[in-house]
Amino acid sequence: MARYVIGLDYGTDSARALVVNAGTGEILSSSVRNYPRWSRGLYCDPQANQWRQHPKDYLEVLELTVRDALSKCAPEVAPNVVGLAFDTTGSTPAFADETGTPLAMSPEYSNDPDAMFVLWKDHSAIREAAEINQACKASAVDYSMYEGGVYSPEWFWAKALHILRNSPDIATKASTIVECCEWLPAVLTGVADHRDIVRSRCAQGHKSMWSAEWGGLPPEEFLAGIDPLLSGWRSRLFDNTETADKRVGYLCPEWAARLGLSVNVVVAGGAFDCHMGAVGAGVKPHTLVRVIGTSTCDVMVAPYEEIGDKCIRGICGQVDGSVIPGMIGLEAGQSSFGDVYAMFRRVLEWPLRELSGLEGDALDEACGNILPLLTAEAEKIPVSESDRVISTDWVNGRRTPDANPLVKGTVSGFTLGTTAPMIFRSLVEATAFGTKAIHDRFAEEGVRIDEVIGIGGIALKSPFVMQTMCDVLGKPIKVCKTMQACALGAAMFAATAAGVYETVEEASRAMSSGFSREYIPDPSRTKIYSGLYEKYLALGSFTEVNLSF
Amino acid sequence: MARYVIGLDYGTDSARALVVNAGTGEILSSSVRNYPRWSRGLYCDPQANQWRQHPKDYLEVLELTVRDALSKCAPEVAPNVVGLAFDTTGSTPAFADETGTPLAMSPEYSNDPDAMFVLWKDHSAIREAAEINQACKASAVDYSMYEGGVYSPEWFWAKALHILRNSPDIATKASTIVECCEWLPAVLTGVADHRDIVRSRCAQGHKSMWSAEWGGLPPEEFLAGIDPLLSGWRSRLFDNTETADKRVGYLCPEWAARLGLSVNVVVAGGAFDCHMGAVGAGVKPHTLVRVIGTSTCDVMVAPYEEIGDKCIRGICGQVDGSVIPGMIGLEAGQSSFGDVYAMFRRVLEWPLRELSGLEGDALDEACGNILPLLTAEAEKIPVSESDRVISTDWVNGRRTPDANPLVKGTVSGFTLGTTAPMIFRSLVEATAFGTKAIHDRFAEEGVRIDEVIGIGGIALKSPFVMQTMCDVLGKPIKVCKTMQACALGAAMFAATAAGVYETVEEASRAMSSGFSREYIPDPSRTKIYSGLYEKYLALGSFTEVNLSF
Repeated sequence: MARYVIGLDYGTDSARALVVNAGTGEILSSSVRNYPRWSRGLYCDPQANQWRQHPKDYLEVLELTVRDALSKCAPEVAPNVVGLAFDTTGSTPAFADETGTPLAMSPEYSNDPDAMFVLWKDHSAIREAAEINQACKASAVDYSMYEGGVYSPEWFWAKALHILRNSPDIATKASTIVECCEWLPAVLTGVADHRDIVRSRCAQGHKSMWSAEWGGLPPEEFLAGIDPLLSGWRSRLFDNTETADKRVGYLCPEWAARLGLSVNVVVAGGAFDCHMGAVGAGVKPHTLVRVIGTSTCDVMVAPYEEIGDKCIRGICGQVDGSVIPGMIGLEAGQSSFGDVYAMFRRVLEWPLRELSGLEGDALDEACGNILPLLTAEAEKIPVSESDRVISTDWVNGRRTPDANPLVKGTVSGFTLGTTAPMIFRSLVEATAFGTKAIHDRFAEEGVRIDEVIGIGGIALKSPFVMQTMCDVLGKPIKVCKTMQACALGAAMFAATAAGVYETVEEASRAMSSGFSREYIPDPSRTKIYSGLYEKYLALGSFTEVNLSF
Repeated sequence: MARYVIGLDYGTDSARALVVNAGTGEILSSSVRNYPRWSRGLYCDPQANQWRQHPKDYLEVLELTVRDALSKCAPEVAPNVVGLAFDTTGSTPAFADETGTPLAMSPEYSNDPDAMFVLWKDHSAIREAAEINQACKASAVDYSMYEGGVYSPEWFWAKALHILRNSPDIATKASTIVECCEWLPAVLTGVADHRDIVRSRCAQGHKSMWSAEWGGLPPEEFLAGIDPLLSGWRSRLFDNTETADKRVGYLCPEWAARLGLSVNVVVAGGAFDCHMGAVGAGVKPHTLVRVIGTSTCDVMVAPYEEIGDKCIRGICGQVDGSVIPGMIGLEAGQSSFGDVYAMFRRVLEWPLRELSGLEGDALDEACGNILPLLTAEAEKIPVSESDRVISTDWVNGRRTPDANPLVKGTVSGFTLGTTAPMIFRSLVEATAFGTKAIHDRFAEEGVRIDEVIGIGGIALKSPFVMQTMCDVLGKPIKVCKTMQACALGAAMFAATAAGVYETVEEASRAMSSGFSREYIPDPSRTKIYSGLYEKYLALGSFTEVNLSF
């Protein structure tokens, strides 16, 4: 009798449910829904870079997607679902009450953005992040050391402190702070006390400075030293975290009924989307898995023996078990990748919107054709060392190596003959150079990369971008067959937690989607690009030092 | 009885004849014609940066424009025309025969681009310019010292050597090399021997290293040392030059008939357009006159006592009498000004041309609206020190200060929110910063600038550009009322040569068109811009050293 699992992938705009054969990895069905309140722009303020998501958005799409995905399967599938797992964005924390429920679920706070999940990309806590970084550098132990040594405004404590300052009322009412990937499994397993929430090794290890090395979260005196508002939170939060292959519990009767599943369904631990996505893509030592979309998330694993106590400089974190239990999970990434192209597309949309007379669908179609046509034209431009435009990819700051949210993008080398496709080509090269900067940092720190696996929209849809990246790196790049590597990764964790497999690696091998394509580097281009890469580095470091204002 | 003069302005694409009342400066009529062969793209190769003009183009439009302009005046005007003068582009030399006639006028060479005028912007002699610079630096006397110390591929000897190498046949046939502004007066006065051509102080002082200090052109051994192909040319060329206020001769019967004028009309010496334009605009000591179009030409005059033997670093030349006889004429300029905006307009035209579905006039209209709309939007962006795009204006190399044809343009400071108008604003600021760099160089070298006068299309048509330039400089800028300052300046030289005035200054005061507008700097903006200017300088010098390839 076949067994099935459900992988639930909670992205920035939508959630997806994937029904998967736990034995073969075959994807039986899939369903995706946008978050309803988020889609209407509620609770967000783009000018202030405030991005909040209502917890009800998550629960409503949960029921819709799971029921919809199951309805597309044969009737015998639902009763044979044995496990379920969530991956979500992160760090996406919310202040919650004594039952672990985000305050926005109560009528009193239902419209208060500070009582909701603070989405990963919310940048309202820039000041708080700077203060945390100051405290880390002044401390005998730099508690940000396993998070790359630079604490980000996108992370747990910065966001928590910002809300504690901004909403004293919430500070009084709340009993805990919960990450999205922890809350959803807690809801489904009927947790009624916040102390029973199973905490995610991935989320907490990468974003809240949790480490077994110092016995959990940073010590009370360190946190209170940043701001007295943080006093007392450490003891109210948690000591332990778990890897996502562990069973959190079983579906509670209420949610079993709402989803049309049995109460025997195992719920696995939660983790971040890219981390489960890396498993879905087949991550293993010396393989870099890149989730390539508007930004990138780069994930590697390394046996403990290979890294030892060494602290990798300037990445987004190294956490024991955050990806594959028993190995060190390493995270890096570019703050903008597809967003670099989108920025240029928006500049070129301007004349179409303002001067073409086009409207509605015709305008959308013309705008939609900008990137495909730029790509086709840019591809024809020969790779050469002379007469070039050189750009940096930092249009939204830099995540790794060495996070700096203030750096900005540059395009250099304009002449009277410079064309839009030439600029686009240079931006594609810039995103590839940003990839190489991450690759080289891993290599310098002793983490060898033999091959790259790409997942996500750009990996599947843009051969020009992928071949350029491959030529710049001088390393082969494989692309996963499935568009749903993250949800498939969640399904692998569900299958492991449900006991179908002993380990996540075993699940990953058995349930893999395989690869749709492999890119091979052209050595002559790799040679030319290595010279241009030096110019990219020089241009970047000049603008970082002299023009970030 | 009123007396009249004709100012003839030979620009890059067209020639204009202006009929002017010599007493009042009143402009009676004007006529402009495009060069017919040039308009069809003949003899040019944009890819190779080869730009040649057929001498017949000049003569054909001469007759057409003068006759047309006179036909718009009352019948008593033509018989009372007393003088005529030419200003032309330069350095625009041609190889000529023993009569001083460019070889392309003969059937044998009528289609040979090397037998035509080599237009100022022709860049085919980059290698030759480099060799000349090398020779200058190796020589005991740096013969380029009064031309800014960097010899340009756009100038006389570089172009001459390039053609001597490229066309041995022309090297054998030619007796001399003549600048456009020397040839046209020679034709009109019936010169039949190349040794009788009156040589232009302006053209030769600024472009062929002619100086009274070393007795004319650089010595034979210096020239032959650059390349033996240059041997013997010095003695075939000329020793003396004349300022343009001097009479070259009278209209010869043939041309008097062709133009419908009397043989008593005085023909003045020729000079470059911007130099006569500066006189037309009312140049005087401590006033910088800028001709602002696709590029700029900046002209000043200084009494000999003020400059003495001092050599101004990094400008395009200082020549006794090149602008106003009896004063040192100083020339500088930006290689691209309006061309910077045109480059960006072309990038934004790309989506309109490729994706809007517009064609013909509708497409032209949409493209034509890009710069006006960018200007309207950019004007609304507040001037501030933060959140800025910083650019350089070097999209076509840099002319002054310190010529470097290899530098390229940069736009730095992109974020995800950067818009087309923000980039445009930064490009406008970059062209103003380029202006300030020239202004500051003059000031550092002891040439004080109290006010700026703008002439040319952009000065009259873009208040946003002019106010930005004024705010960046922190100096008032006046704009000449007439669009035809160059032709009006030529008319002033004609009037002086014809004896209506004793001196060019007297003519300039009497015949001035006055000013249409004065811009006054806003001190708060000047302060902000002075900080941004430092970043412009830093960005420029980084890219110049590290990215010019």
